[in-house]
Amino acid sequence: MTAQHPAPRPARTAPAPEPPAVTAAEALTGYLQDRATDFLRSLRLYGAAGADAEDAAEAARLLRRSARRIAGVLHVYRPLTDTDGSDQLRTELLWLSGALGHEHACAARLDRLRGALHRLSGAPAVTPGPAPVRGVPAAGPWPGTGATGDGLTVGAARAGALLERRLTLARTRAHSAALTALGSTRFHAVADAAAVLASEVPLAPAAHGVLAREALPGLAEAAQRRLVEAVEALPLSVAGHPYNAEALAHGLAATPGADAPPAEARQDAPWHQVRRLVRLRRYAQEVLDEQRCAAYEPALSVPLLHACQALDRHRDAAEAAAAAANAARTPRIAPATAYALGILHADQRHEVEAARFAFGRVWQRMAVTGP
Amino acid sequence: MTAQHPAPRPARTAPAPEPPAVTAAEALTGYLQDRATDFLRSLRLYGAAGADAEDAAEAARLLRRSARRIAGVLHVYRPLTDTDGSDQLRTELLWLSGALGHEHACAARLDRLRGALHRLSGAPAVTPGPAPVRGVPAAGPWPGTGATGDGLTVGAARAGALLERRLTLARTRAHSAALTALGSTRFHAVADAAAVLASEVPLAPAAHGVLAREALPGLAEAAQRRLVEAVEALPLSVAGHPYNAEALAHGLAATPGADAPPAEARQDAPWHQVRRLVRLRRYAQEVLDEQRCAAYEPALSVPLLHACQALDRHRDAAEAAAAAANAARTPRIAPATAYALGILHADQRHEVEAARFAFGRVWQRMAVTGP
Repeated sequence: MTAQHPAPRPARTAPAPEPPAVTAAEALTGYLQDRATDFLRSLRLYGAAGADAEDAAEAARLLRRSARRIAGVLHVYRPLTDTDGSDQLRTELLWLSGALGHEHACAARLDRLRGALHRLSGAPAVTPGPAPVRGVPAAGPWPGTGATGDGLTVGAARAGALLERRLTLARTRAHSAALTALGSTRFHAVADAAAVLASEVPLAPAAHGVLAREALPGLAEAAQRRLVEAVEALPLSVAGHPYNAEALAHGLAATPGADAPPAEARQDAPWHQVRRLVRLRRYAQEVLDEQRCAAYEPALSVPLLHACQALDRHRDAAEAAAAAANAARTPRIAPATAYALGILHADQRHEVEAARFAFGRVWQRMAVTGP
Repeated sequence: MTAQHPAPRPARTAPAPEPPAVTAAEALTGYLQDRATDFLRSLRLYGAAGADAEDAAEAARLLRRSARRIAGVLHVYRPLTDTDGSDQLRTELLWLSGALGHEHACAARLDRLRGALHRLSGAPAVTPGPAPVRGVPAAGPWPGTGATGDGLTVGAARAGALLERRLTLARTRAHSAALTALGSTRFHAVADAAAVLASEVPLAPAAHGVLAREALPGLAEAAQRRLVEAVEALPLSVAGHPYNAEALAHGLAATPGADAPPAEARQDAPWHQVRRLVRLRRYAQEVLDEQRCAAYEPALSVPLLHACQALDRHRDAAEAAAAAANAARTPRIAPATAYALGILHADQRHEVEAARFAFGRVWQRMAVTGP
């Protein structure tokens, strides 16, 4: 990817297509009503999915996707909204997204750890057949079972079985919690609010008096500034050096106190924060791209997506590493099981390091081509 | 580093200094006699060191250094030597180098694992005071002791203590074996042979009839070809991609049978072979550099040294990883100890991967500037 310098435009002979002269209110209304319609459609899909776990998971994913976008756009363009209504809607959408996301996160974490154990056993990654029926743990084909290897190999099979039990239990609990959330009056209030949003967006009176191309880019730019500031606080010069061994540097660190977060969580927190800011920036960009607001290259959405993907991988690997460490705290496990969990933890922390490296490369390219 | 193209030389106006017209016999004799003198000097230093472990270790290092060079040069330039005498001397020097090297390897492995455990505990690396008196294990300041952390942190301290015990025992045994070797008639025969070498090098009659600059570069080139062939068989395209997770890919693999080497050892073997070939190539280059034989840039010795260093690091990390895995096979260890050893194993396998990556970069640069 290289920086593109547009050729100087000959004045008035061949005018470039101007962005349409829509107001900020029209632009935001168009975007938010589309997302609210997506939200309501996903909700119907979820209801129709019934006992089909795969359809339900896909509907929940789409529901969360639109909820995050509505909340993000209300956040970035907040000065143009009726803040009383939009702030509350935002809070409720994030609550719903969180309540529905936990089940998916448990399933994805188990998949990731399953894949890593297969890779570490030198076996090809196995997709364990159809997704398990809700609440029923799958009999995963764990590596090492039936092998003629020594105790340490058996440990991989046992570590796998332990993780399977723990994460399936967590997933079942998350599923119950999601069902409870979906049956609550709080949820029905969010659904009603989304239905209202599909026909009427809570905007500030000022949003009707300004053009989208005048009012929106500045607010997206403010989101960009918050992102840049957060990225500048990251140790990117270390992360850009391959094999810096930084992500695992506290893998065996003593916790300063019982209530303090572990050292790795403290180290990861600023990256998670940048992940949230990249997302906000992406959603802000989607509104601009729809309006073809001239101040921003539409091409920016691709590196923003790549940055998001690197930071999603960072978060997923960090949580998988924590799950392996927590499993190792199970009382009375065999040493071989603990050994395999140690290897798994270190492996996922190296994935964390690899994701930081990948983010650094994407960010560097964005600095060349970006706004 | 960039390729240097010498400017075309004006004919006969300012002749470049020709390499001196020494014979191949003179060149080899000069190099080998110097190394034999080094060998004898180190031997005297070793005798004078007495109970001083540090002086003795340094003398043993110099002894092995000259033994390896004599053996390597006799190997590369074998067609110019009296093969009956030189082959036997080579075998005996490699035996001696191996017998003396084991103790140092145990000490270095313990240092490496100690450093890694400190890094993983988030503590600054600690040099554990003076080197322990031979056979007496040092009370290393292991991380985690006295910390308020949970069981997994205590595991780091216990893993450290376990490794300390095991490697100190191995080191003590290696020390006894080295002392036995140094008292053997076999050793006295090597020392005698080195004394003879210092005054008379076992060369083929043909070596006296050819110029060094005509006979030596071709043999060094043959060593280079063997090296290039071995490097071409390495998975360098994978190793050149940072965070390829290849070195740990078999960290929990089942051993196909009780007698088969573990999967990681099989994966490492071709790299160890390249390490040996780079060394031979380096020693061959030292002879050429001394004679300023025109066919080779003296500048080649620097990237060869860097290649050697990367592959030394590869071997050291691979052996440290194996030591952690072996310690995890100790019966009746606590799960937290095994967990820490798993993390340590994975950490050292990532060092293996980092060393391969580093070697790939050095090799790429050599392909640009090299012969």
